[in-house]
Amino acid sequence: MITSISRINDTHRVIPGELDMPKRLLLGPGPSNADPRVLEALSAAPVGHLDPTFIELMNEVQTLLRYAWQTDNHLTIPVSATGSAAMEATMANSVEPGDVVLVGAIGYFGHRLIDMAGRYGGDVRKMTKPWGEVFNIAEIRQGLETHRPSVLALVHAETSTGARQPLEGVGDLCREYNCLLVLDTVTSLGGVPLFLDEWGVDLAFSCSQKGLSCPPGIAPFTMSPRAVEKLQRRQVQVSNWYLDMSLVSKYWGSDRTYHHTAPINMNYALREGLRLLAQEGLEARWERHQANAELLWEGLDSLGLQCHVEREFRLPTLTTVRIPSGVDGKAVTKHLLADYNLEIGGGLGELAGQVWRIGLMGFNSDRKNVELLLDALETVLAKPEVKK
Amino acid sequence: MITSISRINDTHRVIPGELDMPKRLLLGPGPSNADPRVLEALSAAPVGHLDPTFIELMNEVQTLLRYAWQTDNHLTIPVSATGSAAMEATMANSVEPGDVVLVGAIGYFGHRLIDMAGRYGGDVRKMTKPWGEVFNIAEIRQGLETHRPSVLALVHAETSTGARQPLEGVGDLCREYNCLLVLDTVTSLGGVPLFLDEWGVDLAFSCSQKGLSCPPGIAPFTMSPRAVEKLQRRQVQVSNWYLDMSLVSKYWGSDRTYHHTAPINMNYALREGLRLLAQEGLEARWERHQANAELLWEGLDSLGLQCHVEREFRLPTLTTVRIPSGVDGKAVTKHLLADYNLEIGGGLGELAGQVWRIGLMGFNSDRKNVELLLDALETVLAKPEVKK
Repeated sequence: MITSISRINDTHRVIPGELDMPKRLLLGPGPSNADPRVLEALSAAPVGHLDPTFIELMNEVQTLLRYAWQTDNHLTIPVSATGSAAMEATMANSVEPGDVVLVGAIGYFGHRLIDMAGRYGGDVRKMTKPWGEVFNIAEIRQGLETHRPSVLALVHAETSTGARQPLEGVGDLCREYNCLLVLDTVTSLGGVPLFLDEWGVDLAFSCSQKGLSCPPGIAPFTMSPRAVEKLQRRQVQVSNWYLDMSLVSKYWGSDRTYHHTAPINMNYALREGLRLLAQEGLEARWERHQANAELLWEGLDSLGLQCHVEREFRLPTLTTVRIPSGVDGKAVTKHLLADYNLEIGGGLGELAGQVWRIGLMGFNSDRKNVELLLDALETVLAKPEVKK
Repeated sequence: MITSISRINDTHRVIPGELDMPKRLLLGPGPSNADPRVLEALSAAPVGHLDPTFIELMNEVQTLLRYAWQTDNHLTIPVSATGSAAMEATMANSVEPGDVVLVGAIGYFGHRLIDMAGRYGGDVRKMTKPWGEVFNIAEIRQGLETHRPSVLALVHAETSTGARQPLEGVGDLCREYNCLLVLDTVTSLGGVPLFLDEWGVDLAFSCSQKGLSCPPGIAPFTMSPRAVEKLQRRQVQVSNWYLDMSLVSKYWGSDRTYHHTAPINMNYALREGLRLLAQEGLEARWERHQANAELLWEGLDSLGLQCHVEREFRLPTLTTVRIPSGVDGKAVTKHLLADYNLEIGGGLGELAGQVWRIGLMGFNSDRKNVELLLDALETVLAKPEVKK
């Protein structure tokens, strides 16, 4: 012991000051601000991951996730990681090597699904549209007819473009063509109407830091009985151990078999975020998001700014705004952060440099935030320093 | 919108009460209690994952992890998930399909490494010892000589048995046989002497909820330049997108390229846990853990209880205690929880039903906790209800 200690190297022993983060208003694509009630729940002392009180909490979280998504799926759980891992869980558990996977890519996150599906051995085909548009039902039928996939993956709420993909009729088509339907609901859960069972969605994923008013770090995931059946029929083990639902579901099921240690406090937070949603109710929640988004759109219009997505398909949670010619988009976001402690996002992928992304999600979908942002934008846009 | 809302199903709309978790003293294999300073940091309002203040915090966390592990590895980061995912990250990033991977399994977590290595296409070979023992250097040389692996994986602190695997000389052997050395430090980081660079460890992983006094949900990971070089030379993409360090390292490196949204608040917590460690200093930290463990061992001896692991190889962080014949182990843990709000663990895998597992880790390695546990154990063991 003593000889060990004599060798300690203090090169990296820096002692930073007390944590002192600025109070930002997060109106970008996420994370969004957490509800103060969620932050309070987050900081409760942890119990063990097999504690009877925690097991009761797990059940509550599962039930409330079913409400949020409007599904009866038994396998509805939070993945112990961020939304990207829950996205990967849908591919890991639905795609077997050689399966034809058809991905509808209308932005950055569709392309991420393509990347992930390939890593799980999928024979990946893609349908694309210009970033900001969505597929119509005829295009989806055509894709299924051409590729005859085992899995169709679509993005309900494309976080890179702000477009909302209509889902009516898609599930019926997927049954007609005998394929599973995977849906990205990262930017829609808790803010935009979602009816997983009615739409015939088989696997879906989301995150905590947007419509659910929590910090990032835990991620809703669900699988229909049809998808579970395909998982049980697999010839080849899921190649991802952490996200293998044949193992994870034993901890979240009646067995309570240890798999990994659940992120206890993030589950406390998620429970509170979902409790807030259940108290408000989906109807009021969705109407609040729609009303505040419309207020934003009107205000942007008054400032002479143009939204990137056609009104019918705009997400109420996330709006992409075209950067006017002659304006330095980055200078504007920097001024908003420095002068107002207000974060909005820049464009991602193909839309980098072309749009700003404005989020009004969960706790942050509030009339006061819209007014504050519109005022700040008006002031900053008038500054000579933001002209190119 | 209106037609959508009329279809809302309220079956799962339960509204649970306010979060009200019991105050447990967690003296099991983890999670351990979080330091109150950590819980306070955890509940600070989140900022964005590309906020300049968060990027500064990321740098601090990386530096402090290097101190904790005694390594200069540039690629030293927290994985955005729990310790099991960081374990998987070592296999995902070091094993290419067909690589011979030699795993030294002295308990449950060695066998988990075997499972994971196989999922990444490794040609997995194993060395085993009875649960509770460790390998000597001659056995490790013999294993390398027989199997000529590309990767050797060992468990420094076997959470299922409480055994500490000595590492002196192992790194030199791995260089002699030209293989990477992977080390599980889940139950040692922040509590047990660790010298990654001196020991020639190439990949290591840990968790937040033990020696670092944080809740679970974020997981230290590190890779040596030798391991990074093997990653860069790969013929085949890492099959796990979320844990692919060729992508993740671009967010944690100077590029700051978006990969996934970091779990902001868990990073706040980890920073505080590491700040506590830096303030105390590794020497004092390790001595505290050793002293409290010795106090526990003496006390157990006085109660007539036997430790499962030979004294020389016992972890100060986790002690396995043999359940005396005639005692119902589960009845004892249930009484401790119900009467004292005190959690200790049962056995796992081969040791299920044979041992209790007692953790004294990070914040919880405290003389008062040892005394409280010994008193409680003495009282509970005297109860007729715990006799078989």
